[in-house]
Amino acid sequence: MSLHDEIVEQPSRARDLVTHGRTTVEAIARSIADRPIDLVLIAARGSSDHAAIYAQYLFGTLQRLPVALAAPALTSVYGVETSLERALVIGISQSGRSPDVVGVLESARRQGAPTVAITNDPGSALATTAEHVIDIAAGPERATAATKTYTQSLLAVAMLVAAMEQGTGFAGTAGERWAALDALPSVMAAALAVEPQVAAVAEARAGLDRCIVLGRGFEYATAREWALKLKELAQVAADPYSAADFQHGPLALVEPGYPVLAVAPSGATLPGMTELLTRLRDQHGVDLVVVSDVPEVQALGAAALPTPPAPAEWLSPLVSTLPAQLFAYHVTRAKGQDTEQPRWISKVTLTH
Amino acid sequence: MSLHDEIVEQPSRARDLVTHGRTTVEAIARSIADRPIDLVLIAARGSSDHAAIYAQYLFGTLQRLPVALAAPALTSVYGVETSLERALVIGISQSGRSPDVVGVLESARRQGAPTVAITNDPGSALATTAEHVIDIAAGPERATAATKTYTQSLLAVAMLVAAMEQGTGFAGTAGERWAALDALPSVMAAALAVEPQVAAVAEARAGLDRCIVLGRGFEYATAREWALKLKELAQVAADPYSAADFQHGPLALVEPGYPVLAVAPSGATLPGMTELLTRLRDQHGVDLVVVSDVPEVQALGAAALPTPPAPAEWLSPLVSTLPAQLFAYHVTRAKGQDTEQPRWISKVTLTH
Repeated sequence: MSLHDEIVEQPSRARDLVTHGRTTVEAIARSIADRPIDLVLIAARGSSDHAAIYAQYLFGTLQRLPVALAAPALTSVYGVETSLERALVIGISQSGRSPDVVGVLESARRQGAPTVAITNDPGSALATTAEHVIDIAAGPERATAATKTYTQSLLAVAMLVAAMEQGTGFAGTAGERWAALDALPSVMAAALAVEPQVAAVAEARAGLDRCIVLGRGFEYATAREWALKLKELAQVAADPYSAADFQHGPLALVEPGYPVLAVAPSGATLPGMTELLTRLRDQHGVDLVVVSDVPEVQALGAAALPTPPAPAEWLSPLVSTLPAQLFAYHVTRAKGQDTEQPRWISKVTLTH
Repeated sequence: MSLHDEIVEQPSRARDLVTHGRTTVEAIARSIADRPIDLVLIAARGSSDHAAIYAQYLFGTLQRLPVALAAPALTSVYGVETSLERALVIGISQSGRSPDVVGVLESARRQGAPTVAITNDPGSALATTAEHVIDIAAGPERATAATKTYTQSLLAVAMLVAAMEQGTGFAGTAGERWAALDALPSVMAAALAVEPQVAAVAEARAGLDRCIVLGRGFEYATAREWALKLKELAQVAADPYSAADFQHGPLALVEPGYPVLAVAPSGATLPGMTELLTRLRDQHGVDLVVVSDVPEVQALGAAALPTPPAPAEWLSPLVSTLPAQLFAYHVTRAKGQDTEQPRWISKVTLTH
């Protein structure tokens, strides 16, 4: 299995998880429903940390729950246990072996908080530590850069939140939520079909050595993940920002021709993103590459990575991440670098 | 008032706040003590967001409270109010005019949560929205890049946490906490005294156009803030990482001679930072600049920005930020760029 194979198999892996994981997440949701929960605490590292950012918007919009990202150093470095009596604690780790993440879950269980492991290894320390396990069933991931384990982790979080009692109506009824999830795999397959176009855009940027990556709301996670893939695979100094924070200072970096990658699908963030991208093009003359399902927004870019519309706004990162991964893959090849085994990185980080 | 004046006046501003703000934070702490609080939610943007990261470690180590950073887009973009009935909600904004931050505090007040504004303008919308106000009393900040409003915001958070009932003993007794705070301003003054050395290190790096900035725990906030100053002022593509996350992928970016700035003071993070910096020097041959009070760690760098020891580990960012600011200032001058009015940035971001 190569990195490219792993990118391409994502729709079928997603199909498996949506089909076979529903019973599991519904059981977890029922179990959680009886517990007093005021917040969600998520422990994660690397790409999984970006799944946690996605979770922040999911739990916020669908359940009104605030989400805190664990600072594992509080326990592992400073030796302090955070109070988690009224928290839902989720650990996300493809290997299930990150001691930092396992440590947060251990602390949560000692305190009696409901705990969920989202992992690709149901026999891992993370899985055995947690009260509940969602096996993301991505199959073995051989390439060092996470792709299918990332999207499967996003999907696991989305399914869990979708299975919980409806809070806000943001994602409609339970029936609408599961219809959107069921529709997702084929939309993902359609998103991968633009690969020739993505490859051409990437090959024209074989000299890419730095860039800014922008997203907002749900798609801030995608911006972060896109930047990480570009760093890991292609040694591009890619700097991700929420579109809101970007205007607070880093905008100063931008010069004519500066490469800016933007994730701007249809939805509530579109007006603000359109305004910012128009400004970047007209006033700053950046080299803009846009991921979007909206033709008018695609047209703002010097190049576009078009996607099909996501089945629902809250699932859009599962679609827009795919051309971003393909772009990183093809830039890496265009630069003549190794897509399978980037330099000096180990897949499992044993941070203590 | 120039940027340099504002950097230099930080110890005296800190002295004023420690002296005159104590009554205020003690009154807030008494008021909060009666409320059921399971988490702290912090709304902030830009440099203030880095004060929020510092707050995450402070509330964690001293009070065992998990800290969530607000995603203001949940309300301003998606129109959803997060449940904050059992949250302490803190808005940090020097101007007090960021609509996003004000919106989070408005939502919290509607829900009856205790709210605190940390701002340099006690007449601002943020201050009038919040139940409690800590005026950081930084005086007018003319330069676009935030310096003294940043350290005063850190100090306000530190004082508030210090005034709350002792939870963990991490920072000792109330008497010890206030003794450390009282000692801080003169240590800050001593930290500024190394300016000639900082200027020499910065002038030798007038070609700096990208770098990685590393910190961990309390000092992750400093790494983020240092990187933002370098971006805003000197158009350096500076990439901040927690030392733990850095090993998860971005390490691939590093080539011999790559500039790496690190904040590594004495304390619980020192062994891990020492190990990482030794590896970066010996195996990767980076151009390492180290902020530290520890001679052995200073010696790991191609250059060091030495600091005096902080009065306490939980106050170390208030010391280590100062040479970082001076470094950004002198790199900006060495590059022949404007220290007072960086390009295209407005001081107040009116993100909707």
